Amino acid sequence: MKVAFLGLGNMGSAIAPHLIEAGHQLAVYNRTRSKAEQLEAAGARIASTPGDAAGDVDVVITMLADDHALEEVVYAEGGVLDALPRDAVHVSMSTISVSLSRRLADSHRERGQRYVAAPVFGRPEAAAAAKLFVVAGGPAADIERCRPLFDAIGQKTFVIGDDAPSANVVKLTGNFLITTVIEALAEATALVRKSGVNPDAFLEILTGSLFTAPVYRTYGQMVAADRFEPVGFRMPLGLKDNRLLLAAAEEASVPMPMANLVHDRFVTALAQGMTDADWAAIARISFKNAGL
Amino acid sequence: MKVAFLGLGNMGSAIAPHLIEAGHQLAVYNRTRSKAEQLEAAGARIASTPGDAAGDVDVVITMLADDHALEEVVYAEGGVLDALPRDAVHVSMSTISVSLSRRLADSHRERGQRYVAAPVFGRPEAAAAAKLFVVAGGPAADIERCRPLFDAIGQKTFVIGDDAPSANVVKLTGNFLITTVIEALAEATALVRKSGVNPDAFLEILTGSLFTAPVYRTYGQMVAADRFEPVGFRMPLGLKDNRLLLAAAEEASVPMPMANLVHDRFVTALAQGMTDADWAAIARISFKNAGL
Amino acid sequence: MKVAFLGLGNMGSAIAPHLIEAGHQLAVYNRTRSKAEQLEAAGARIASTPGDAAGDVDVVITMLADDHALEEVVYAEGGVLDALPRDAVHVSMSTISVSLSRRLADSHRERGQRYVAAPVFGRPEAAAAAKLFVVAGGPAADIERCRPLFDAIGQKTFVIGDDAPSANVVKLTGNFLITTVIEALAEATALVRKSGVNPDAFLEILTGSLFTAPVYRTYGQMVAADRFEPVGFRMPLGLKDNRLLLAAAEEASVPMPMANLVHDRFVTALAQGMTDADWAAIARISFKNAGL
Amino acid sequence: MKVAFLGLGNMGSAIAPHLIEAGHQLAVYNRTRSKAEQLEAAGARIASTPGDAAGDVDVVITMLADDHALEEVVYAEGGVLDALPRDAVHVSMSTISVSLSRRLADSHRERGQRYVAAPVFGRPEAAAAAKLFVVAGGPAADIERCRPLFDAIGQKTFVIGDDAPSANVVKLTGNFLITTVIEALAEATALVRKSGVNPDAFLEILTGSLFTAPVYRTYGQMVAADRFEPVGFRMPLGLKDNRLLLAAAEEASVPMPMANLVHDRFVTALAQGMTDADWAAIARISFKNAGL
Repeated sequence: MKVAFLGLGNMGSAIAPHLIEAGHQLAVYNRTRSKAEQLEAAGARIASTPGDAAGDVDVVITMLADDHALEEVVYAEGGVLDALPRDAVHVSMSTISVSLSRRLADSHRERGQRYVAAPVFGRPEAAAAAKLFVVAGGPAADIERCRPLFDAIGQKTFVIGDDAPSANVVKLTGNFLITTVIEALAEATALVRKSGVNPDAFLEILTGSLFTAPVYRTYGQMVAADRFEPVGFRMPLGLKDNRLLLAAAEEASVPMPMANLVHDRFVTALAQGMTDADWAAIARISFKNAGL
Repeated sequence: MKVAFLGLGNMGSAIAPHLIEAGHQLAVYNRTRSKAEQLEAAGARIASTPGDAAGDVDVVITMLADDHALEEVVYAEGGVLDALPRDAVHVSMSTISVSLSRRLADSHRERGQRYVAAPVFGRPEAAAAAKLFVVAGGPAADIERCRPLFDAIGQKTFVIGDDAPSANVVKLTGNFLITTVIEALAEATALVRKSGVNPDAFLEILTGSLFTAPVYRTYGQMVAADRFEPVGFRMPLGLKDNRLLLAAAEEASVPMPMANLVHDRFVTALAQGMTDADWAAIARISFKNAGL
Repeated sequence: MKVAFLGLGNMGSAIAPHLIEAGHQLAVYNRTRSKAEQLEAAGARIASTPGDAAGDVDVVITMLADDHALEEVVYAEGGVLDALPRDAVHVSMSTISVSLSRRLADSHRERGQRYVAAPVFGRPEAAAAAKLFVVAGGPAADIERCRPLFDAIGQKTFVIGDDAPSANVVKLTGNFLITTVIEALAEATALVRKSGVNPDAFLEILTGSLFTAPVYRTYGQMVAADRFEPVGFRMPLGLKDNRLLLAAAEEASVPMPMANLVHDRFVTALAQGMTDADWAAIARISFKNAGL
Repeated sequence: MKVAFLGLGNMGSAIAPHLIEAGHQLAVYNRTRSKAEQLEAAGARIASTPGDAAGDVDVVITMLADDHALEEVVYAEGGVLDALPRDAVHVSMSTISVSLSRRLADSHRERGQRYVAAPVFGRPEAAAAAKLFVVAGGPAADIERCRPLFDAIGQKTFVIGDDAPSANVVKLTGNFLITTVIEALAEATALVRKSGVNPDAFLEILTGSLFTAPVYRTYGQMVAADRFEPVGFRMPLGLKDNRLLLAAAEEASVPMPMANLVHDRFVTALAQGMTDADWAAIARISFKNAGL
């Protein structure tokens, strides 16, 4: 397929190579051109603008930092909306607001274009290993057309149904669940440490019994060791996703006290200068509060 | 071994038969005698008092409802403390306070008796299937003596170290983590339901990607279906364990905001008449608050 | 002075008459014209558009429902920004976001116009009695020019300094403090009621000892009686102000857990259909949760 | 009247002199005798034991640190319960648990003695100035007998009714309300400070408009100045009262999320070494979290 890929940050630059490997013809665009050049060697064409990238493709994939970045790329004059051919598909992989996803679905429909929301679960390491989980929302036929792309980058694709923004709800809610795991492990670890229990032994019990999920291993090790490197997902992105979740929850009239608690952790972390830390470092606030 | 088993509630009556099957000689005691009679057929001797049960054994296992019940059985005149032979082991499996566990360790030491704290993870179904997880704290030699018993009732035994009460800290903290999973799933499910996402599809994504742990399957199904039966662990016991956790946390000077949130859920559930529901039914409070 | 008054809702329609009484020449504008007609009899001129109202005045006062309404009135073509004469003052009395206030300050400065943020404390009854408290931010000279207007509508004016948006911070924070009083009284009253203490006797003790402030009397009576009428400030406005506060707090990197708690109360209230209730009716959530 | 006064801590030593001044015949007892000696000069008799003090009086007043201290003084062999004459009154002024107050009411009734719960509002300065507020619960006739004593030490006495423990509920709930004021002011002040607003100016607006109550002045000044001296009420006592409130709330099945939040503040404060600070210093946690 002819594919455009817009956005080569931590995630995008780990995902795009798998599409070339799978035999697709790739045009790439990134605001900072140097990141795109790394893909040129592998066979990608560097596009000079989003519109240049999306002008002659079957699918355009966007993987950008936030609502604002995506809006610019899509809605600017000569952007994706203007350039994408009729019947071509916009696959939005970024973690964006439910309301922007809804607006994109409408905009593309009006232009006779297709829209699939396909946010992914997994940190950059998982993206590099083509082990992401893809959650796809949109018309079944459009999702099927994109399936070879999803197969190339992920280990599993979940289809959530016709309503594209539902995939964004699932993504934001999934991220929320991850933050509850981090916070719960942080509070638990503060208690066991102050009670004289070895946190590694504690973690071994957890992950060897009821809490066998990868998310408890990954974050449990960070929390037990009080070491949050390498930075897979930066603190401000954690706050951003939390903010999008709370906005979706408020719009749907759903109080989410755990999300509020995590919100305060992110805000506190940023106020205390942890801007460049991994989002899991919110655990340090529990440690500090406990005098550790 | 000669074993006394005190306390035949939901958990105790599911655990004790496995000890008989494993060839141990069992004396049982329960305040309500009828429950003990079911074990008589299987070969257990019914003791008339705790002291009668514990008088001539290698190990006495206690599996009682709370601190108060255990204190009565141990400290009453002619109770376990008076009756247990020197060098025999008291294995305390109940979920009790860290401070009572510490007091028991001291009391038995003074009498020349042994004390092992060995609380278990698992609901009654797991106990019936001999699939519990045992967390054992106490002197290594004493734990080893009891290992055949642990093997008979559980799928895995974790040894936490010499300090018996540490096992109780781990148990209470583990239960706390379970409650955070229930609450997080409840808030998440309220949001996806109000956003038009099928909660079963949502759960399938979770348990098929990052949240593969049994605890997410077990409670996720209850929460997604909004059905909390059969009742494996009653609401007031959930509140009790939460209270013990918060007491341990306060004593160790560790603030645990998530535990407070869960505390309020339990209190609200009881105030609204959910006394006989499974503890996972606190999810209903999130549903109600969201107008579901 | 020649004054334009834009926005004749609950608050605006109670404030504007005092300006006419004080001898000022008033032009009024409201989206729904009928509300303006009530002031015509008292001597006001009805303007057909915001620009028509603001075209030839010393001061334009805006008292609108939210950011969106104010932006429309100010930034639309031919709106306040276009129409207001050089050196005339825009007095913004609405409870708006700190960021919009900052943007207004900039916009007016660029046009050679003046901008004073002057949000008010007080419910419609206080506005009708000219007993509001005015918090004014902006250049001292501009505030002084407006002082006769503030004197006509309020019992006291506080000058917060040169930075206009600071007045909005103070207003939002003040409203936050009011919500903490409501929530605290709600939780307290739930406890005393369930403990068999008469809530009126309890309130008398509070307001007769340490909690003599009007805010405890006003809301205490509502909460003690579990009656929240007349509706002075509707629930969705309470949520709006809370949202603006949380946005300002996030921007300033200040975690505010009490504001989060109140946020959840408002969201819950709206989810349960209390859209038309006074914001103090969030107390009912505490009552419900306690099984009252 | 012949009065015994037990407990000469911060509060007791400020209260007792007023009883002597009012002409009552005072016997005093304190565990640390030196404190009692200061009153000897003023005319008090120093008793060697609680029973010695209470043996021949009309009224015994207890003002002790906590449940434990009061239980010892009352229930020890030869203590108040044994020594107090029939028909004499035990006035319990300490801030104690509702359940202990209930037990005391029962114990004294069985002995033919009288029991009045009369906790007070006010910091040591208020006690020294005889400006306390007294909340009295118990049989009307017994309260009337004690009224001259209440008049000697306070500015106002509120009678809550026949049920003595109700007075303790009111006291604990009142203290809870004070903590909500401290916490709310802390969060608010963190925001205004980080927004560039002078906290003193902010406080002046509050206390000059809707928040005129003494409690906002007293604590507002501490919070605005970030100075929490002199220490009127130590941190561990704040946590103790909070714990008693939460226990009463749990017993009555009333969830109190604000009380939980304050609980975590106290625990955090103690974990961070603020043991000797005034309880209002929990405000520093909001400041720290905001990076101030």
